[in-house]
Amino acid sequence: MSILEIIEKKKNGWELDKSEITEAFLGYMNGTVEDYQMSSLLMAIVLNGMTFRETVDLTDIMLYSGKKLDTKKVDGVMVDKHSTGGVGDKTSLIIGPIMACLGLKMGKLSGRGLGYTGGTIDKLESIPGFRVALTTDEFIFDLNKVGFTECEQTPEFTPLDKKIYDLRSVTGTVSSIPLIASSIMSKKLAVGADFILIDLKVGSGALIKNKKDAIELANTMIEIGKAYNRVVIPVLTNMNRPLGDNVGNALEVIEAMDILKGKNGNLRDLCIELSSNLYSRAKHVNIDVATEAVKRVLDDGKAYDKFIEFTKMQGGDVEKLELAEHIVPIKSTANGRLKDISAEEIGKLALELGGGRKKKGDTIDYGVGVVINKHIGDSINEGDILCYLYQRDNTDRSLEAMKAFTIVK
Amino acid sequence: MSILEIIEKKKNGWELDKSEITEAFLGYMNGTVEDYQMSSLLMAIVLNGMTFRETVDLTDIMLYSGKKLDTKKVDGVMVDKHSTGGVGDKTSLIIGPIMACLGLKMGKLSGRGLGYTGGTIDKLESIPGFRVALTTDEFIFDLNKVGFTECEQTPEFTPLDKKIYDLRSVTGTVSSIPLIASSIMSKKLAVGADFILIDLKVGSGALIKNKKDAIELANTMIEIGKAYNRVVIPVLTNMNRPLGDNVGNALEVIEAMDILKGKNGNLRDLCIELSSNLYSRAKHVNIDVATEAVKRVLDDGKAYDKFIEFTKMQGGDVEKLELAEHIVPIKSTANGRLKDISAEEIGKLALELGGGRKKKGDTIDYGVGVVINKHIGDSINEGDILCYLYQRDNTDRSLEAMKAFTIVK
Repeated sequence: MSILEIIEKKKNGWELDKSEITEAFLGYMNGTVEDYQMSSLLMAIVLNGMTFRETVDLTDIMLYSGKKLDTKKVDGVMVDKHSTGGVGDKTSLIIGPIMACLGLKMGKLSGRGLGYTGGTIDKLESIPGFRVALTTDEFIFDLNKVGFTECEQTPEFTPLDKKIYDLRSVTGTVSSIPLIASSIMSKKLAVGADFILIDLKVGSGALIKNKKDAIELANTMIEIGKAYNRVVIPVLTNMNRPLGDNVGNALEVIEAMDILKGKNGNLRDLCIELSSNLYSRAKHVNIDVATEAVKRVLDDGKAYDKFIEFTKMQGGDVEKLELAEHIVPIKSTANGRLKDISAEEIGKLALELGGGRKKKGDTIDYGVGVVINKHIGDSINEGDILCYLYQRDNTDRSLEAMKAFTIVK
Repeated sequence: MSILEIIEKKKNGWELDKSEITEAFLGYMNGTVEDYQMSSLLMAIVLNGMTFRETVDLTDIMLYSGKKLDTKKVDGVMVDKHSTGGVGDKTSLIIGPIMACLGLKMGKLSGRGLGYTGGTIDKLESIPGFRVALTTDEFIFDLNKVGFTECEQTPEFTPLDKKIYDLRSVTGTVSSIPLIASSIMSKKLAVGADFILIDLKVGSGALIKNKKDAIELANTMIEIGKAYNRVVIPVLTNMNRPLGDNVGNALEVIEAMDILKGKNGNLRDLCIELSSNLYSRAKHVNIDVATEAVKRVLDDGKAYDKFIEFTKMQGGDVEKLELAEHIVPIKSTANGRLKDISAEEIGKLALELGGGRKKKGDTIDYGVGVVINKHIGDSINEGDILCYLYQRDNTDRSLEAMKAFTIVK
């Protein structure tokens, strides 16, 4: 079947068989299918959907477009964790050490940030000396030794997913459950963990806007997992607010360490929830028992020690973390109650300060960022400090910063 | 609004306003919108549709992407005619002379054939000496003098339509009522006739598969016409069978002349129907009166003389028409009744013989083709000649040729 006939078939709402999906997507990988043909097919998929079967087939083609990690060399049960994106999301830096302390192996391949959404690899690179590029042998060795390893995803893994994702991001074809599910799952299957936690962000600022879609996406990923004999554990979380108080690369590493040293708040609560779910499923223990175990390694400092072990193993020295020299307090110009903090506005602020990339390949400043000083529900007086901006210059950004805070009478 | 936001808006089923349609389509024309973005938007339009208002706006943008003919210089009422494609369709070579004899001015810009569908310009070029490339001044001069002129559409007219059509043809986005309507109407509006007849082919082999879609397309074109104060006259005709007996460039010119000299059959009937409709509307006469007038100029030889005047005016000499030297009869291998003749199979046969282009820019052989010798409903005996192939070689193509004929007991 020609690519034109395949596009027409999906356009007319029919199910594609595996040979047709292969022809279209591997054809795109090999250059026999053009960008403009793939984007037309992608839009037809966005609007007419894909069945579970088609989605599993697409995942398979993406998975086998690159190499797979040989997980036979990993001692013990391997777990993985993925977040569908968020502002201030440093959860893997907290959950990884917790999992390692509890005897599981969390080996993660991660990406860099783009736009106002951060990437864990950038956060890790803010630690002086930390090596984000590991060979497969180093990755397995570190994972067996420490129990937690995180390194940069290389182009050898699911190259087709990257090519498709790049096209989706410029053709309005991002928001599609089968395309999102196959993209996430192919990457996770390439690493090969037995238990895969998906932190599924839902909300107006997220890829997934409502609960119905989130449940459909979760079910799709569970189905894909079953086809590969893997357990997928989706957890739906709110995305509209920043996660924790710190946004910015070094600032987020510092906050992750604060949580590992016992700091309270929504970030700690989320990390306990996610960790307990993953541990409970991977070790077949009751959720209450799992929650107790997770809290124990946080409270007795073992998870913090594990984080230090992890950073040292990859060459990093957290003592040398460096922050921007100008710390500018942003004071409220209103009285009232803090009703909302916009994740998007805080993310944009960090981006403007130089902490993110406006386009691929931009260099970023690890030391800049935002530290939120008030929480939702707090009563606010004029002059109260809402947040601190860590910046390299003395520019007054109070107007932009105030946009992130909704204060009502 | 960015192209991404425009794509998202149409993807989500919203109506685009004119500034958005302009931004997307003129952006594509100017190269700021990429092929893969336009094809994604086109697929969203195919699946989510466009309102009348959006379709008129798109037509307007295509129309003003190029130049318009200055019809103020044409003396009298100008008419035009468009067919949505067919095998063996040489109707404009018959209707044009009829209109001219009846005092109307039919000036037509036409295209070339691709695949198994022919193009009038190729047919005219089979007449030795015939010039298909005319300047605007020549076009107007010939039209005023003869009353019928047909020449090649140049890239100065609706260049955006051409760019969009080329992309649609390789991205599975051809079958869309608003896209078809705006494509046809922008080209017709650029020429500027007051009365525009649309021969709308309906059937499994046509662009439009069923009557419901045909009526929707017809209404859309009527609405577009109203927005420009033009009368659009859609006539729905069957597409599944070849039009007339001859398929192939020179062969079709010969058949057009045969009809103009009085030959009967489905082709004559269709030409009378189409001509009467157009004349009736353009001259505000009753359809029966119009039909009589049309038959009169056919029967008294005036339309034939007009055709000769038209070909001479553009430098052609029909006396020099040349056909392929090998005329191979295809004999029936079955007894029964001729139930169907497939337009698609006959078209493919002519293409194989060298009478069409498999891809753009291919050279074509004007002298080859197929002459059908039996009509639907005829009783057939084994050995009866179903058709003749005009070919350059002696290859036996009887098996392929038989595929076009469905003979039942």
